[in-house]
Amino acid sequence: MNAAALLEALRAAVGAGHVLTRETHDLTAWERDWRQRAHGHALAVVRPASTAEVAAVVRACAAHGASLVPQGGNTGLVVGSVPDGSGTQVVLSLQRMNAVRAIDRANLTLTAEAGCVLQAVQQAAEAEGLLFPLSLAAEGSCTIGGNLATNAGGTQVLRYGNARDLCLGLEVVTPDGEVWHGLSGLRKDNTGYDLRDLFVGSEGTLGIITAATLKLHPQPAAKLTAWAAVPTLQAAVDLLGLAQQRLAAGLTGFEVMGQFALSLVDRHMPQLRVPLWRDSAASAQGRTKPDAAPLGSSEPSAAGSVGAPYFVLLENSDSEGEDHARTQFEGLLEAAMERGLVSDAVVAESIAQARALWHIRESIPLAQAQEGLNIKHDISIPVSRIPAFCDETDALLQREIPGVRLVNFGHLGDGNLHYNVQAPAGADAKKFLQEAEIRVNELVFEAVSRYDGSISAEHGVGSLKAQHLTHFKDPVALALMRRIKQALDPHNRFNPGRVLTP
Amino acid sequence: MNAAALLEALRAAVGAGHVLTRETHDLTAWERDWRQRAHGHALAVVRPASTAEVAAVVRACAAHGASLVPQGGNTGLVVGSVPDGSGTQVVLSLQRMNAVRAIDRANLTLTAEAGCVLQAVQQAAEAEGLLFPLSLAAEGSCTIGGNLATNAGGTQVLRYGNARDLCLGLEVVTPDGEVWHGLSGLRKDNTGYDLRDLFVGSEGTLGIITAATLKLHPQPAAKLTAWAAVPTLQAAVDLLGLAQQRLAAGLTGFEVMGQFALSLVDRHMPQLRVPLWRDSAASAQGRTKPDAAPLGSSEPSAAGSVGAPYFVLLENSDSEGEDHARTQFEGLLEAAMERGLVSDAVVAESIAQARALWHIRESIPLAQAQEGLNIKHDISIPVSRIPAFCDETDALLQREIPGVRLVNFGHLGDGNLHYNVQAPAGADAKKFLQEAEIRVNELVFEAVSRYDGSISAEHGVGSLKAQHLTHFKDPVALALMRRIKQALDPHNRFNPGRVLTP
Repeated sequence: MNAAALLEALRAAVGAGHVLTRETHDLTAWERDWRQRAHGHALAVVRPASTAEVAAVVRACAAHGASLVPQGGNTGLVVGSVPDGSGTQVVLSLQRMNAVRAIDRANLTLTAEAGCVLQAVQQAAEAEGLLFPLSLAAEGSCTIGGNLATNAGGTQVLRYGNARDLCLGLEVVTPDGEVWHGLSGLRKDNTGYDLRDLFVGSEGTLGIITAATLKLHPQPAAKLTAWAAVPTLQAAVDLLGLAQQRLAAGLTGFEVMGQFALSLVDRHMPQLRVPLWRDSAASAQGRTKPDAAPLGSSEPSAAGSVGAPYFVLLENSDSEGEDHARTQFEGLLEAAMERGLVSDAVVAESIAQARALWHIRESIPLAQAQEGLNIKHDISIPVSRIPAFCDETDALLQREIPGVRLVNFGHLGDGNLHYNVQAPAGADAKKFLQEAEIRVNELVFEAVSRYDGSISAEHGVGSLKAQHLTHFKDPVALALMRRIKQALDPHNRFNPGRVLTP
Repeated sequence: MNAAALLEALRAAVGAGHVLTRETHDLTAWERDWRQRAHGHALAVVRPASTAEVAAVVRACAAHGASLVPQGGNTGLVVGSVPDGSGTQVVLSLQRMNAVRAIDRANLTLTAEAGCVLQAVQQAAEAEGLLFPLSLAAEGSCTIGGNLATNAGGTQVLRYGNARDLCLGLEVVTPDGEVWHGLSGLRKDNTGYDLRDLFVGSEGTLGIITAATLKLHPQPAAKLTAWAAVPTLQAAVDLLGLAQQRLAAGLTGFEVMGQFALSLVDRHMPQLRVPLWRDSAASAQGRTKPDAAPLGSSEPSAAGSVGAPYFVLLENSDSEGEDHARTQFEGLLEAAMERGLVSDAVVAESIAQARALWHIRESIPLAQAQEGLNIKHDISIPVSRIPAFCDETDALLQREIPGVRLVNFGHLGDGNLHYNVQAPAGADAKKFLQEAEIRVNELVFEAVSRYDGSISAEHGVGSLKAQHLTHFKDPVALALMRRIKQALDPHNRFNPGRVLTP
């Protein structure tokens, strides 16, 4: 590879000011991944401003035999969007392509360029009184192109699906530097193979998504959030079934949090005041109607015992209005209490209270980090089998690594758990990771496999899990994936070594 | 190809009794398509009873260089599931593989073999108090494998999506005779390329679907149907927007029917009594509340004028109950009347009345056939552009073929119209088809293309539209499709000539 000639060609493609090299720029933001698990070295970071420029960059790389790493907000969790250490890869940043190209109200669609930050897409929809429901922790930084390339999940999947389900059409630059103009806004189109869904979730290894036409939904008239203490994980699963029956598509969120996960929030962020946390058995007497004790009205007694092994956060989105939503929600929670599925519950009285509940749920990862390094998993299991999976795997890990602590929380409505493993209390977390990470991953992934689950529910494969895939993915599926990669990118130029091992 | 040796191998694979040839059987049911547009000739029809037998059949065909045509209920509309005329192809019928393998209530999934009749899948779900929402005219004969292979649509897509959206996992036999065990019941699984959606909609050209894990939904507590006369197609689009806003996911059906389409039902099936058909302007005076005139209570005056250029059938599925559904529905229709979007409406008072309304909608194709041969289209257009598309294309066709009659109806909620063209009144329909079909297709497809639509919304490509695809599909997309076909089926053994031209 003639690096100088390639840089020349890249400058011709996007303008000299948009080809950044380490000689002139600090490239850390593009070279290091979000979780700081890897720091690669790029030949250059190029920042095209249009689809034609993306295609020109791809052709330049092809002509000079260089490989490309497409990058959006670089917030991925599996080391999928940073270059390797060779110093020969070109990082293609989509961040300058951040226009909302069109909104079609009557068709309920929005067309955005890949570099649009997710929050900007949400806001553009909201400005038209509509909803783009994809929502996740990184929404202020991640881009819609990256969301689609990784088929992002988040907290609204239960009702609205993954990123895949919110996408109707794509514009994609292929490894040949051609442009597939597939920005369809159609709900039905059976004219051949589903290329859209092949590119969605392929993590930049088959094509570079430059724009997408997305599905919008009407804004709900009201959104209510409840917090429920449940006696067992099985009760949480049963509560989910009851909520799906009674609220139907109104149920837009159903998150579960284990006691230990919340204890970390309670310990490291005491100002957040986890509801129903202490003394909840006693105070439940006065709360058979869930709204009788508005959130935050009762000061937890400092010495009280923690009330429940699991907590559930429910969200009800209603097309009629708040009164209807509240009646529905209270009816559900009362029925759940009668059946023993819920020991105590509160319904947020205001948007601020609802935000506070979500904030507690979203603070678990940070609280966990403050407790020390840990081993993260992003698994999914058929919802019906989650209680047995957790019973078995909790016990297995305890047996193998006495004192280990499980930070179990996640999107129960989607069968998606962040089943994280923290060092025993007082242990050196760094040493624990060095000694136990491989073994813990093995134990958890094998258990996931026995329960017909997935070792990557929503974070993708990247380079972090590519090796795991060779063990845990159906071999026929892997062989098909390799054939498709070979057919579309025969020279392995797009994000090599990600998803599929070399 | 040594036909005798192949037949021997097929008999070894599935048992002699399940290899049917024309010497011993009338193969018409497998060789002729549903609309009787093609009658091929098979070397044999084989009926495997298991996935292993399907794989053995595929390997036998591969060893002898024969190509295969997978077939479910053979109810497709685009000549995709019958053999060509060569007498060398093997029809692989999945009809014996018709077991429901499992239902997981808490996970809301059902696993069925490909040969399960759609209605049997619906009934198996219903027996557990759950809903499998895929619903279409052929549901008593079509199979779930065929539904997935063609990504079937139908009347519930607006709420529940196409067949693709109702599928979580697949079991597939590849052109190499290997089995991909992908029967996942997971809502989230980001471990590599989306093979599921690649096989779904590939019409048997990339793999043979032998089983699928399907999404179920809770049964709604009540389902109500309304029938509304609307002054314009634009009013129908606006009514759709209003209904989506107010009913949200409760809106499970939104069908539009043009006046001429309904006039054919009125003419050929007068016993069905189209509501609000005659004299509706007069009787509307007494019906500002839509429930004031229960369906069928007012005898249409024989000489009255037809009340509206378009009619809409709406369905509201409610998780609370009939009273709530009715209040919601009436509120919607009153608001629509106030805005001038609806001139008159009735809400069905009973399940029998609701069925009668749907029966009128579903009788349009038959009424149309009784009127004479016609040119059928299954197109989709962004919902927002449908009124302009119809205005322009109606006028264009009238100009080109004076007197031509448009049978326009379909799933407006999905932007999917069955925009069919009937010979001028009194003309010889057969002669009309011979003379006008190619030209009419060209005019309609070019208009669809100008409006960013699809020339096959829900019926697929088969062999009927494969040639059209070469003109109307993005060339980069077509080239990608060919590469994928070549990668997965390099010897072109699975349903050759379908989807992609040779």
